[in-house]
Amino acid sequence: MLSFESDYIQGCHEKILQALAETNYEKEPGYGADRYSLSAAERIRGACDCPEAEVYFISGGTQTNQLTVDTMLDSHEGVLAAKTGHIACHEAGAIEFTGHKVLELPQKDGKLNAADLENYMETFLADGSRDHLVFPGMVYLSQPTEYGTLYSEKELRQIRKLCDRYELKLYIDGARMGYGLASPCNDVTLPILAELCDAFYIGGTKVGALCGEALVFPRKSPKQFITKVKQHGAMLAKGRLIGIQFDTLFQDDLYFTISRHAMTMATEIRDAFEEMGYSFHMPLISNQIFVILTEKQRKTLSRYLRYSFWERLDEDRCVVRLAASWATTEEDIAELRQLLQKCKEEMESC
Amino acid sequence: MLSFESDYIQGCHEKILQALAETNYEKEPGYGADRYSLSAAERIRGACDCPEAEVYFISGGTQTNQLTVDTMLDSHEGVLAAKTGHIACHEAGAIEFTGHKVLELPQKDGKLNAADLENYMETFLADGSRDHLVFPGMVYLSQPTEYGTLYSEKELRQIRKLCDRYELKLYIDGARMGYGLASPCNDVTLPILAELCDAFYIGGTKVGALCGEALVFPRKSPKQFITKVKQHGAMLAKGRLIGIQFDTLFQDDLYFTISRHAMTMATEIRDAFEEMGYSFHMPLISNQIFVILTEKQRKTLSRYLRYSFWERLDEDRCVVRLAASWATTEEDIAELRQLLQKCKEEMESC
Amino acid sequence: MLSFESDYIQGCHEKILQALAETNYEKEPGYGADRYSLSAAERIRGACDCPEAEVYFISGGTQTNQLTVDTMLDSHEGVLAAKTGHIACHEAGAIEFTGHKVLELPQKDGKLNAADLENYMETFLADGSRDHLVFPGMVYLSQPTEYGTLYSEKELRQIRKLCDRYELKLYIDGARMGYGLASPCNDVTLPILAELCDAFYIGGTKVGALCGEALVFPRKSPKQFITKVKQHGAMLAKGRLIGIQFDTLFQDDLYFTISRHAMTMATEIRDAFEEMGYSFHMPLISNQIFVILTEKQRKTLSRYLRYSFWERLDEDRCVVRLAASWATTEEDIAELRQLLQKCKEEMESC
Amino acid sequence: MLSFESDYIQGCHEKILQALAETNYEKEPGYGADRYSLSAAERIRGACDCPEAEVYFISGGTQTNQLTVDTMLDSHEGVLAAKTGHIACHEAGAIEFTGHKVLELPQKDGKLNAADLENYMETFLADGSRDHLVFPGMVYLSQPTEYGTLYSEKELRQIRKLCDRYELKLYIDGARMGYGLASPCNDVTLPILAELCDAFYIGGTKVGALCGEALVFPRKSPKQFITKVKQHGAMLAKGRLIGIQFDTLFQDDLYFTISRHAMTMATEIRDAFEEMGYSFHMPLISNQIFVILTEKQRKTLSRYLRYSFWERLDEDRCVVRLAASWATTEEDIAELRQLLQKCKEEMESC
Repeated sequence: MLSFESDYIQGCHEKILQALAETNYEKEPGYGADRYSLSAAERIRGACDCPEAEVYFISGGTQTNQLTVDTMLDSHEGVLAAKTGHIACHEAGAIEFTGHKVLELPQKDGKLNAADLENYMETFLADGSRDHLVFPGMVYLSQPTEYGTLYSEKELRQIRKLCDRYELKLYIDGARMGYGLASPCNDVTLPILAELCDAFYIGGTKVGALCGEALVFPRKSPKQFITKVKQHGAMLAKGRLIGIQFDTLFQDDLYFTISRHAMTMATEIRDAFEEMGYSFHMPLISNQIFVILTEKQRKTLSRYLRYSFWERLDEDRCVVRLAASWATTEEDIAELRQLLQKCKEEMESC
Repeated sequence: MLSFESDYIQGCHEKILQALAETNYEKEPGYGADRYSLSAAERIRGACDCPEAEVYFISGGTQTNQLTVDTMLDSHEGVLAAKTGHIACHEAGAIEFTGHKVLELPQKDGKLNAADLENYMETFLADGSRDHLVFPGMVYLSQPTEYGTLYSEKELRQIRKLCDRYELKLYIDGARMGYGLASPCNDVTLPILAELCDAFYIGGTKVGALCGEALVFPRKSPKQFITKVKQHGAMLAKGRLIGIQFDTLFQDDLYFTISRHAMTMATEIRDAFEEMGYSFHMPLISNQIFVILTEKQRKTLSRYLRYSFWERLDEDRCVVRLAASWATTEEDIAELRQLLQKCKEEMESC
Repeated sequence: MLSFESDYIQGCHEKILQALAETNYEKEPGYGADRYSLSAAERIRGACDCPEAEVYFISGGTQTNQLTVDTMLDSHEGVLAAKTGHIACHEAGAIEFTGHKVLELPQKDGKLNAADLENYMETFLADGSRDHLVFPGMVYLSQPTEYGTLYSEKELRQIRKLCDRYELKLYIDGARMGYGLASPCNDVTLPILAELCDAFYIGGTKVGALCGEALVFPRKSPKQFITKVKQHGAMLAKGRLIGIQFDTLFQDDLYFTISRHAMTMATEIRDAFEEMGYSFHMPLISNQIFVILTEKQRKTLSRYLRYSFWERLDEDRCVVRLAASWATTEEDIAELRQLLQKCKEEMESC
Repeated sequence: MLSFESDYIQGCHEKILQALAETNYEKEPGYGADRYSLSAAERIRGACDCPEAEVYFISGGTQTNQLTVDTMLDSHEGVLAAKTGHIACHEAGAIEFTGHKVLELPQKDGKLNAADLENYMETFLADGSRDHLVFPGMVYLSQPTEYGTLYSEKELRQIRKLCDRYELKLYIDGARMGYGLASPCNDVTLPILAELCDAFYIGGTKVGALCGEALVFPRKSPKQFITKVKQHGAMLAKGRLIGIQFDTLFQDDLYFTISRHAMTMATEIRDAFEEMGYSFHMPLISNQIFVILTEKQRKTLSRYLRYSFWERLDEDRCVVRLAASWATTEEDIAELRQLLQKCKEEMESC
């Protein structure tokens, strides 16, 4: 069974394994004070062209989102997010767990837009009972989004402008940041994110690491952030585990190299389906491919191929998602092509 | 500088590195549904002689404590712990973060005792205003404790009896469980813990793993526990990372072998100090050695040796803690002996 | 300036003032153990024909909603509510403050319907990633709704049936319960509510009291509910204050008499507007009248009349809400008629 | 049965009843925007000689404490309180409910002292692991304390000085503020409190009101405090209920007059016991009298007199508390004297 189910089904880049092995017996202080975490933070500041940024390493994406939203908001504030944003639907209420409401905005292909944001804020400010409403305190975006789409630099600048006008923080969830940066459709860079965001994270778990995300505060982190990390239960004793991984990923351009590789693989997956006559729910933008399947196709393919079910389009058709990653190989692609051919024959024969 | 600062200053056992490497490209489902997590859970059920136990893998100790206490207590309940218990003082209020009060009991050498527990409960029940008090809902112990001491089977049975009488849950924090089990003073086994506790965790981070603790519910876990893990931000996408580590640790008796090794090393550290005339704050019980230093000794040693400051005894004397671990080597011990000799000479010469 | 701005702009029914005066120097125990609270609870059990119900008196509606939702839900559960439900939009995130998400359902005239509820639950149960979603644990309705509309007995029974099927609690916010019960459109009684709900509250603040709501658990209240009330900061030392009020309201049919009076007054307000040619956003159902105003009308009326702005319909037209209450008098109505006449003349003359 | 069980067993001062009756049909806006709340706030600013103070009216003491502590602390901070402080033991964990730990300090007669506070802070600051500790962010005092004792101006200034040095907020719980201000032992005034505190509340519930406390922020309230009040479920729709009460209490010196009366009554209660040979657990300071009873006395008195059990001193002796209040009458005192005489005779005769 060939699997493109997600971008977190395999371990980590072998250079990380190597670094873990090489540093294994070195004695380093705990809780992120080890030399590798310090070095990784320095490399990330460099990549962001933001020497004053504070960088923290957190074990996973939901943890990072919960921590950042909770500690940057005042207690009466909520966070604005697209209806399809990860925090709005796939984190089991981790934001609400900390007392904050996710305020939903309309979305298109996973993105919210400046006009809807402005409209929300104007309606809020015009409401005479707004003291009884949740105050919007932050905009949450993901880059790429849950649909693999990307905000352009221009769109981000528009949103930033509104954040300034309405005194909102801007936070970007970059669980798949690398794949976004490597997209041919992308015109946003880490330095641009550091310029525009109050916080963002660079995803490791889905981009070559075993675990871990690098949370960047380009200007100022919440007061005594380290204690808040501990209070959330989010601090690893062996902080080196994530430090070493990001120190490796941000050495010799590795993070970007493996992301570009994933993009190439994604393109080949798309091509393989396209050549066999399949159509797509949306054009290929980053590392996720959204294929439309008829019931017959779905039944046949599901015997050989693992993917994520995405959504039903109508009686006969649904969308499934395949993900390429840093670990996808040419062999995977070749096997996919064979398997699609085989499925074609099977479907024709019955 | 030789360091015995803690038992989490080095990476992980090399068999774990090997297992991570060997399984690296296997495609496994996320969120703990991978085959290694399943296998590790099965091995732990075996080690606990408790086939019906539910086992969950969580990234760190504070996270595990927060999750377990929060999800096992009713919302108006607090958790009883020794004043020196980790949750009472060194977790930055992670328990209170979830709305529950830590109710402090007296301690001796890090342990609470049945009589104090009974006394607390009787006073509580006799209080006519108890509807206005925090209801005790759980007893939290750690085995070994923060002082390296151990509860005997008899003591645990006494506490369990009181838990039954007063309808309290019993939860044991086993951050250093292995070192406790390996202690010559110990008469408690995993099956006994599984018999007596409502929940306990077997520490990985401090006993050979890069990260991760195995949380065991011998009978029943809180309803829909997996969703609560996610809601706390505590779920790793690549659950395999912890699964593989515990699958390795609970294979071929590794967890116990490396714990016994640490115990041997701890004994040698104790002997090294004893032979040089140092005295101890408490007898050696598990992997932590509590040495009494005069100011002069402290100043001299601190130039060559890393340890944890523990507490001040009087004007001239303080207690420092050294920890042996799975990674401590005979070379470390030899170096320690040399260094103590060197310090002795230095102190005599001035 | 004549005001129909809301149903909480005046004090309380004079029989309550009288009862407060008569009982003022009696010495009664605190925290709801006074004889008046006990008697009021007994009267409410009688009115609900539910001798085993538990009744608690809470100072306000948001407090009651927060308490009930938080203490009836398991920690990973959220509460389903119409998008326009009070807890979904006008309580400043009081539900999220306690860690629970409000899961929004479509609404029509303020009501959710069984089909949408069923659809939500089926989609939820069919979602393979539902462990990562907020679990629906309760349905929140208000009777009457924010739009003054009412659920029929049949509708409530359909919803109850779904609650049984999907193991959801059913909770009804009755801030204006009296006005709903007094509506000619209503076929629901307190005994029916007691039969169908897991909890509901009978509003006092808006129906003749100075403050206070009577929270009814027809079968079983959350464990140690009184302590949870205290923990929420919601317990009044002089519980008698609310006890005396409800003891008065549920004596001699007072609660129902004053509610019927409000309904009569609402009808007269509606008639007064209708006779002057105004049209309505929705038919009159309980004590709230939703009048459509053109800009010209709005500007003229707002010089003489206080009401709540409800929503904008289009460029020229908006909806305003007037509320009748237990305290509305025939004099108020007469003044309204004069004032509408005056406005008419003004508008014609310019 | 004569009761001195507490100072909240009777209704309210009759001038309040009168004011409620007189204003009953006036139409006033809700949520604290009514003219009486505004006027009461202005009177309190006057009494505090603090024209820039912000004043909010909250329904009860626990609610006020929870709100103030939660909204003034940063999320990683806890509140320092005497071990016997109300928030530390008698509020069912209402502070922890909002995520903050109560950090206990030693107490003497209910008071904490500057030296212990300084010592706590120095120990905290010297702790190398303090990032893993709860950060102290506020000092909570009550004036008078749970034991009826008072902080002198000098003691408060010492504590304030430490608060400045360590950047701690200072908050005073004044549930029985009036009785403290009326004590002959007192040298603290409302203007002094306004000068020294970041927040304090003037208790109404126990000093003549049916419910309600006046929370004073002498300088600055937490941002968007009104929304946080709503979010906590603590906002009354008919804010006038508390506004009218405080407007009455702070008119014509009423709050102080009735407090002085209670002090006089307390002195007479003390005298009545003293004359019959009873001894006291502590000298009379404010409105609470702590009498020592032998078992024989306790058994006899409890047939005629209601009081609060306070604590057991030894096998034979316990402490009980009686409270005088604004409502205590000369008739109560006369009855008490008769009753003590009667008990004396009974005890002598058996």
